[in-house]
Amino acid sequence: MAERLIYLPLGGAGEIGMNAYVYGYGEPGRERLIVVDLGVTFGDMDSAPGIDLIMADVAWLEANRDRIDAIFITHGHEDHVGALGLLWPRLQKPIHCRRFTGALARLKMEEAGQPTDQLHIHAPRPAVVEAGPFRVQFVPISHSIPESSALIIDTPAGRIVHTGDFKLDGTPVVGEPFDPMMWHEIAHEGDGIKVLTCDSTNVFSPQPGRSEAILANPLLDFVTSQRQMVVATTFASNIARLRTLAEAGVAAGRKICLLGRAMRRMITVATETGILDRFPAVIGPEEAAELPRDKVMLIVTGSQGERRAASAQLSRGRYLGIQLKEGDSFLFSSRTIPGNERGVIRIMNALSESGVDLYDADDGIYHVSGHANRPDIEAVHELLKPKMVIPMHGEHMHLREHAKLAEKRGIASAIATNGTMLDLSGDAPRVVDQIETGRTYLDGSVLIGAMDGVVRDRIRMALNGHAMVSVIIDEDDNPLPDAWVELSGLPEKGRAGVPLASNLESELAEFLERADDKIVMDDDKLEDGIRKITRQVAMEEIGKKPEVTVVISRLAAE
Amino acid sequence: MAERLIYLPLGGAGEIGMNAYVYGYGEPGRERLIVVDLGVTFGDMDSAPGIDLIMADVAWLEANRDRIDAIFITHGHEDHVGALGLLWPRLQKPIHCRRFTGALARLKMEEAGQPTDQLHIHAPRPAVVEAGPFRVQFVPISHSIPESSALIIDTPAGRIVHTGDFKLDGTPVVGEPFDPMMWHEIAHEGDGIKVLTCDSTNVFSPQPGRSEAILANPLLDFVTSQRQMVVATTFASNIARLRTLAEAGVAAGRKICLLGRAMRRMITVATETGILDRFPAVIGPEEAAELPRDKVMLIVTGSQGERRAASAQLSRGRYLGIQLKEGDSFLFSSRTIPGNERGVIRIMNALSESGVDLYDADDGIYHVSGHANRPDIEAVHELLKPKMVIPMHGEHMHLREHAKLAEKRGIASAIATNGTMLDLSGDAPRVVDQIETGRTYLDGSVLIGAMDGVVRDRIRMALNGHAMVSVIIDEDDNPLPDAWVELSGLPEKGRAGVPLASNLESELAEFLERADDKIVMDDDKLEDGIRKITRQVAMEEIGKKPEVTVVISRLAAE
Repeated sequence: MAERLIYLPLGGAGEIGMNAYVYGYGEPGRERLIVVDLGVTFGDMDSAPGIDLIMADVAWLEANRDRIDAIFITHGHEDHVGALGLLWPRLQKPIHCRRFTGALARLKMEEAGQPTDQLHIHAPRPAVVEAGPFRVQFVPISHSIPESSALIIDTPAGRIVHTGDFKLDGTPVVGEPFDPMMWHEIAHEGDGIKVLTCDSTNVFSPQPGRSEAILANPLLDFVTSQRQMVVATTFASNIARLRTLAEAGVAAGRKICLLGRAMRRMITVATETGILDRFPAVIGPEEAAELPRDKVMLIVTGSQGERRAASAQLSRGRYLGIQLKEGDSFLFSSRTIPGNERGVIRIMNALSESGVDLYDADDGIYHVSGHANRPDIEAVHELLKPKMVIPMHGEHMHLREHAKLAEKRGIASAIATNGTMLDLSGDAPRVVDQIETGRTYLDGSVLIGAMDGVVRDRIRMALNGHAMVSVIIDEDDNPLPDAWVELSGLPEKGRAGVPLASNLESELAEFLERADDKIVMDDDKLEDGIRKITRQVAMEEIGKKPEVTVVISRLAAE
Repeated sequence: MAERLIYLPLGGAGEIGMNAYVYGYGEPGRERLIVVDLGVTFGDMDSAPGIDLIMADVAWLEANRDRIDAIFITHGHEDHVGALGLLWPRLQKPIHCRRFTGALARLKMEEAGQPTDQLHIHAPRPAVVEAGPFRVQFVPISHSIPESSALIIDTPAGRIVHTGDFKLDGTPVVGEPFDPMMWHEIAHEGDGIKVLTCDSTNVFSPQPGRSEAILANPLLDFVTSQRQMVVATTFASNIARLRTLAEAGVAAGRKICLLGRAMRRMITVATETGILDRFPAVIGPEEAAELPRDKVMLIVTGSQGERRAASAQLSRGRYLGIQLKEGDSFLFSSRTIPGNERGVIRIMNALSESGVDLYDADDGIYHVSGHANRPDIEAVHELLKPKMVIPMHGEHMHLREHAKLAEKRGIASAIATNGTMLDLSGDAPRVVDQIETGRTYLDGSVLIGAMDGVVRDRIRMALNGHAMVSVIIDEDDNPLPDAWVELSGLPEKGRAGVPLASNLESELAEFLERADDKIVMDDDKLEDGIRKITRQVAMEEIGKKPEVTVVISRLAAE
């Protein structure tokens, strides 16, 4: 049977987050595989209450573990490396990445108690990593974290470029600039590029993207014009932004204090790995609290409204000895990711209540995106001249728009969402399989499936409340006259004006008294009857049907 | 004791939604009161799972019911009239409004089974409604629903203008235009305006607001250029927009079909009350499904992503016989209210999966706001020349910005959030009291307090899961050896690889066996012990501590 080249996204295609992509080459069903990125996404109350992290379901990879040759990590963002430590035990294959990314990947492995000797650090192109039939190069590409890499994946069927996350930034402040000459070279080696798997995040942004470097002056002007304490928040991993902010603070005569573990860790890792060659000296929160307010600038985590991060803590009152007040300034040097608005607005209003002046990046002065905009994506199509474009890293609407863009230029394309396997061997992508896939949740310390029912039950309890009914059947198979009802998340009283629990208990007692032996002797029938009455009475009394758990205890004859 | 003029927001100040404002005049503590608006806001999973509607806590008004003379409703939006039927039984005072608003208010009263003879319909200024010491006029003002009214409230202490929701629109398409000459007259009658209580929603929007009328041409161009079915969604109560959309459809040779009960009802009420003098003939969904796709335009509810509205239904597949497909166009002629992004994005992606082309109002071509922007607010300050400005209808940051704007012009101002009572008698507002206030929830058919613990328990169950433990103590005060554990919303297995419930049951059995009489005889102690062990074992096994409900059944000695 002829060999083929396949592509299979398990996460990140049809959503933004939890990236996990698979490439394969070989005889159908026996392809050798590599995995690109193992990221997480974050749960919310609407769809995943109580869930700590969300990642791709790698059951298919696990079932085909003997076919996997390697795992590659493109860059250090949580949505690309966050699940590495949690999912690695299911794959147990060598991990390849560059140095800074490797240091972050190492932390993920350590936190999860996994072996760090599986990590292999590589130099960028022209260095090549061999993995089965694949020859892979890490190509520096600009993004909102240093050392983001595109991958050149050379296969017997041709060259794939997997962009990872990228923007076209010639002056990214920290990290490597986008290098069009190198990409021109990559596009013209051998037979050129067969497949471009490409970031789609900003396909709806009509203007060309802007460089990180343009923020230096506006940020300096901003800090210089403030009279009291200045606080700025941004993404912890945006090392370039952190330095621009810190240098603006120093130039304005302020000492810099970093609040938030993730941010301090990022600076440490970036310094240790040589990514960051200079960063202003920082002071601790105790010293920041002692200095005159116009001599301090805080750079803090929590730009997305995260409840436990420094921004939220500061908005709620004194934090690490620092209290914001009237006349202080708070800058969001960030964009609110859709879905995080409520949390961000909560912080803004809490700061407003303390008299803090708010500044955000809505007008684009204090933030630039890390992703290629529509004209940039088009420029990359033009520069790389691939035979096919496979849009990734986007919701369905982004992938679709990106595919249209490619097709307009006469480039073959296909929308492949998570679980869709494409055959890339021919001149155009072809759907060859649909893998059953989904999401895996980290809940406390346990990995569960999104469809295990755990989250479904939580959502139902949250929407409907919960009634627990306990009945006892005696040694002679007669129900004891008292049913016991405990309510959680339900109004105490209903229409009748008496406690709902008492009302339920007397209705259930009546039912038990009248129930015939056939029902009493049968756990399922008895439970059904109890559940039905409970829901019915609740509906009459409070206008909603709670979730019901019934416990039937049968006393053993002695 | 001297009489005073007071203002007390109970809802809508420090938030956008559930408007409820109180004015009073008289001796301190014995002021006669009027209520302005009784609106709702909507719950979300983050803060109020399972809650149907949220409204102001009117306990203070209820306690002072004998002092209330009347309720005024400014306009028919849900956040101004939505709670009328639900809260009226607690106030039982006459309701005053204009005709169209009155028809919507009547529906609210009917739905709640309240008497509609309490509704009094009034003509606009110069008609005057006398209510205790207040003489009130309804003044037409432009907004995104017809017949929005500002109130002139003349009191012995001077004139108040309560703007309600407004924009400065000289050509609102349906309804009355903003009339600067009339407002000039209002500002110059007698001693002029003492207090302006003013909408703050768009205080952060730097450009002058735009008229509803400017949308007609772009919408016509849009519909004309589409080749298959066109669907447009907007707010159901924006009658002007509905007509503009429908007329664009007709001009493009299409039949109009309205989907969504709220929208059809609005058109009916607007027609019956004479607000809407013409609207194109509409067809039903059966007929729409039969016509060629380029001959139909659907105008549908659900622009905010509401799961049960027509937009969401259409995005999920066939709805009322209509199925959207490749090449159809879907327009959001609306803005996504912050917090609703996830729902809207869900619909957009589902439509994208069906091949539907999406258009939104992000560039401002297909939607204009119903609220005054910053320059418009400043123009109103200038036109009305009030002695004081009290910002309302905004989150804290909006109120604060609006107060700053007034103070910059030398107008006295104060930020009064829900529960803050201002004395407006003097030259500047003065905080004189802080009323205990909060939120009332409609949960099913029951009104509960936000702080009753119901929602807190729901959120805890959603985050932590729920464990129910049932133990039986026999006639001799000995625990039966079996504890029964039922889990909801928790992983089935933990670290030990055995079912968590069995694990808990054996740990609890061991505890019961060892527990001494002092514990077994005492319900509280026994429950505490059981709860502690349950949480501890769960923490070890699954890394989280569930909510625990314990039922102890004591068998009576016969």
